Amino acid sequence: MKIAICQSNSIIGGLKGNSQKILSGYRQAVDEGADLIVFPELFLPGYPPLDLVEKKEFREAVVKAAEEIAAQTKSAGLLFGTITEDFEDSVGTGVYNSAALCYDGKIQFVQSKSLIPNYDVFDEVRYFEPAKDIFVHDFKNEKLGISICEDIWNDADYWKKRRYPIDPVQKLVDNGATILINISASPFSYGKRKEKFEMLSLLARNDKLPLIYACCVGAQTELIFDGGSMCFNSSGKLEMLGKIFQEDYFIYDTKGSYSSIDKVESIFEEEILKALQLGLKDYADKTGFKKILIGLSGGIDSALVSYIAVKALGAENVHVVMMPSKYSSEGSIDDSLKLIHNLGISSDNISIQPVVDRTIEMLKEPFKGMPEDVTEENLQSRIRGIYMMALSNKFGFLLCTTGNKSEIATGYATLYGDMCGALAVIGDLYKTQIYKIVKFINREKEIIPNEIIEKIPSAELRPNQTDQDSLPPYDLLDRILKMYLEEQKEVREISDAIGDPEVVKKVLRLVDLNEFKRKQAAPILRVSSKAFGYGRRFPIVQGWRK
Amino acid sequence: MKIAICQSNSIIGGLKGNSQKILSGYRQAVDEGADLIVFPELFLPGYPPLDLVEKKEFREAVVKAAEEIAAQTKSAGLLFGTITEDFEDSVGTGVYNSAALCYDGKIQFVQSKSLIPNYDVFDEVRYFEPAKDIFVHDFKNEKLGISICEDIWNDADYWKKRRYPIDPVQKLVDNGATILINISASPFSYGKRKEKFEMLSLLARNDKLPLIYACCVGAQTELIFDGGSMCFNSSGKLEMLGKIFQEDYFIYDTKGSYSSIDKVESIFEEEILKALQLGLKDYADKTGFKKILIGLSGGIDSALVSYIAVKALGAENVHVVMMPSKYSSEGSIDDSLKLIHNLGISSDNISIQPVVDRTIEMLKEPFKGMPEDVTEENLQSRIRGIYMMALSNKFGFLLCTTGNKSEIATGYATLYGDMCGALAVIGDLYKTQIYKIVKFINREKEIIPNEIIEKIPSAELRPNQTDQDSLPPYDLLDRILKMYLEEQKEVREISDAIGDPEVVKKVLRLVDLNEFKRKQAAPILRVSSKAFGYGRRFPIVQGWRK
Repeated sequence: MKIAICQSNSIIGGLKGNSQKILSGYRQAVDEGADLIVFPELFLPGYPPLDLVEKKEFREAVVKAAEEIAAQTKSAGLLFGTITEDFEDSVGTGVYNSAALCYDGKIQFVQSKSLIPNYDVFDEVRYFEPAKDIFVHDFKNEKLGISICEDIWNDADYWKKRRYPIDPVQKLVDNGATILINISASPFSYGKRKEKFEMLSLLARNDKLPLIYACCVGAQTELIFDGGSMCFNSSGKLEMLGKIFQEDYFIYDTKGSYSSIDKVESIFEEEILKALQLGLKDYADKTGFKKILIGLSGGIDSALVSYIAVKALGAENVHVVMMPSKYSSEGSIDDSLKLIHNLGISSDNISIQPVVDRTIEMLKEPFKGMPEDVTEENLQSRIRGIYMMALSNKFGFLLCTTGNKSEIATGYATLYGDMCGALAVIGDLYKTQIYKIVKFINREKEIIPNEIIEKIPSAELRPNQTDQDSLPPYDLLDRILKMYLEEQKEVREISDAIGDPEVVKKVLRLVDLNEFKRKQAAPILRVSSKAFGYGRRFPIVQGWRK
Repeated sequence: MKIAICQSNSIIGGLKGNSQKILSGYRQAVDEGADLIVFPELFLPGYPPLDLVEKKEFREAVVKAAEEIAAQTKSAGLLFGTITEDFEDSVGTGVYNSAALCYDGKIQFVQSKSLIPNYDVFDEVRYFEPAKDIFVHDFKNEKLGISICEDIWNDADYWKKRRYPIDPVQKLVDNGATILINISASPFSYGKRKEKFEMLSLLARNDKLPLIYACCVGAQTELIFDGGSMCFNSSGKLEMLGKIFQEDYFIYDTKGSYSSIDKVESIFEEEILKALQLGLKDYADKTGFKKILIGLSGGIDSALVSYIAVKALGAENVHVVMMPSKYSSEGSIDDSLKLIHNLGISSDNISIQPVVDRTIEMLKEPFKGMPEDVTEENLQSRIRGIYMMALSNKFGFLLCTTGNKSEIATGYATLYGDMCGALAVIGDLYKTQIYKIVKFINREKEIIPNEIIEKIPSAELRPNQTDQDSLPPYDLLDRILKMYLEEQKEVREISDAIGDPEVVKKVLRLVDLNEFKRKQAAPILRVSSKAFGYGRRFPIVQGWRK
């Protein structure tokens, strides 16, 4: 069977555009002789649609759009992810995350998702009931075994500990499926594609069936979908792989002969840069912003964000602002100017000092008798925030924040100051990872000036300040944070590994105490298995300390 | 059976304090002859514990604390909500939301929750598996039928459309329960207590069993728990009612004779004021803040928040700041001073104009050739934000935001400006509700000056500005918003009801477009059935418009 995989980028709720993508993909594939054309999970409504699913008018519009699409099909099959409803038994939401198979002018078969994920960034139980039945469907002399994303993540051979008691893919195999098709919307995090490859390869080999895995691509606010659709033969060999971080379209013949693909993932630095580039570009494109605005401190974080912005939208669409104060080091402007030159972007230089001075003067009376403290430091950062928001408002620029995961974790950032912005581009990267990535960017020539890379990290909010006045060295800090956040290690395990229980305790206390800041933070592009934001939910007010 | 209900206020994760409350309640009730002492749902870990539940060390600490509590019990029973684990079958989370019944020094019986809510503010499927079994427990010649919160919300006689296929309480009745006990943590919204009363009364009457409904009290960030525990006799008569918005402790004798209680709810204004007072007080108490800071604009919203703050923490702990600009009306200071006098609170008066002027001067160069627009308006609001945050940082004040639901819905607020603050006290109240409540406050004497109530609402960010330059009249706006948000009406229904599809479309478009601002807003004290925040989840980037 010739199966076309349409690895496309949808807009959540953009039914008209998403419908057009489905129909034009279908027509092209039909012209090229495909028997079946496959789009990813919930492609028609966009993924994740969140509480839009609770709106009856939205669901009705999706159902209508699906029928209109189906009406245009001929003998070639069209399979896409959509929402279906069934209120027969008056229990539960009555709404399903489904794959609709259309041909000859209508929806001929619907298979709904059986395993409904409800962890990390997934809230699907809020919306969807599990499938009532699992069937294979006879089509052009094959028995199609169709499943949706999570359905294929519960294989007893692969997982020691399983989330769900049933295995829908096994059921499809037992029911005589001759081809397995999984439509998916599985957000990127580094390392996951390789895991998927190994899991799916094992599954195809064990079940001795060809396996088509159709993925979506594109960013939806914080979530980045990386494409990389996969086609395995019945020996578990990967024979076709969709483009990574790009839309793609290709036809796979289950009876064809292909050479086998072994490498599905590039190195960390390359994958992350492409992911963030796509994340930023899609946020801008899908919200209608044309130009990016970044506050340039002279440090490595804002330098990296500027580089990513240039890659995402082009140098002509990136504007940066230097905002020195009396505590800014001499290098901060020179180094920034060198970066601006290297990247070929436009810039402003506006001192904050006169406004800082005037503000402190106005607060002299209420502050009488009080010593200087963190208040005056935050104030500088907040006045920079005012400048940036004024420029964003005046020119319609998309303001990006430049905070990294180490800072966001420990609260080493000023709320309403450097945290101002619509999107946290590198908020899921630890400081040590940022150094690694910048080194990679500079591997052939110096794009990010060495002066920026080599200087000692500092917020420059008081004389001779460095980050390490308040935080442990970044390599130590990041090790602690990674164990706590991504690896979900217990405090005692972290203390054992680090050998310094006091520093571990101090760091984790900072993480817990700064939940209130993160509540008001910009959405963070997610590139790890556990990012701050939607997928990590802690009470703001709580008394637990280990 | 003499049953003591301990309607107490827990701190999420505060195992030591919560344990002490359980033990001291148990001892008091034993002294007073109770046979069984009941604490609410998840009282020991605090509710909702959110992702703390995913931490093994936290669960272990809860299990250990529960065992230590049980070890101190004698012949009287102690029933409380806690977390239990069962990893026997290696499928799912292995974690349960349970009621532990202890006596004679150990946990004798555990009934876990069967119905796991996962809608609105509830995410429990993320953490908890449903109970494997439902049993009654023989204790002191009664058969206790124990259920947990949601378990009792699926009665086929009461609900036309049900969320779940099973009815655990019916199962308890079928198994011969002689007393029904439900431990609960059900967040307040106006009107819900009456609904609970009617539903539970019907259930007790139909099942011909006494019913004990033990509720928690206190606020946990945005969620407010209102107490109001209820004891029904086997005819469905309400015989005892716990205090509302206060901790309470009382003993109910299932064989006793009581007069029947019909009224469980006060009028809207009174309930809301008490709810918000508790919400603010608990936020401050549980985070350790002693004093509240509020920016006073001369308008009705900040006046109401100041009043609530005084009620919550006392006049001596409320500090307000007037921050006039050249656009401030003459009345704004005079009216504020009158309010400050009436409430007996301290204040500062700091003009923003010098800082606004200096900032605009600094931005003259980049803004060259651009006309004045909303940028200059937002700038004023953001400089007020800087003042407020500086005072908050310097003195350790808890800054409250004063935005209302009508503004938050339509984005009629400045991000990083008037949206600065840790808690949105009246963010779940429409402007028209605020007028109603202020009128109620003034029912006996003028506390909030009439000048403040009667002035035309204005942000005072440009000459002669009024809210109605940008928004429809508040009575119309609030009708539209209420239908859209709380009543979940479809757009066509709202248009039919309002008779002006254009204005409806305009308002709902504003609601959809301002998701990005709400993402970065302070937590909002929830008093309606659908508040912005945790219980309402829409994509920030999306293309759906009806």
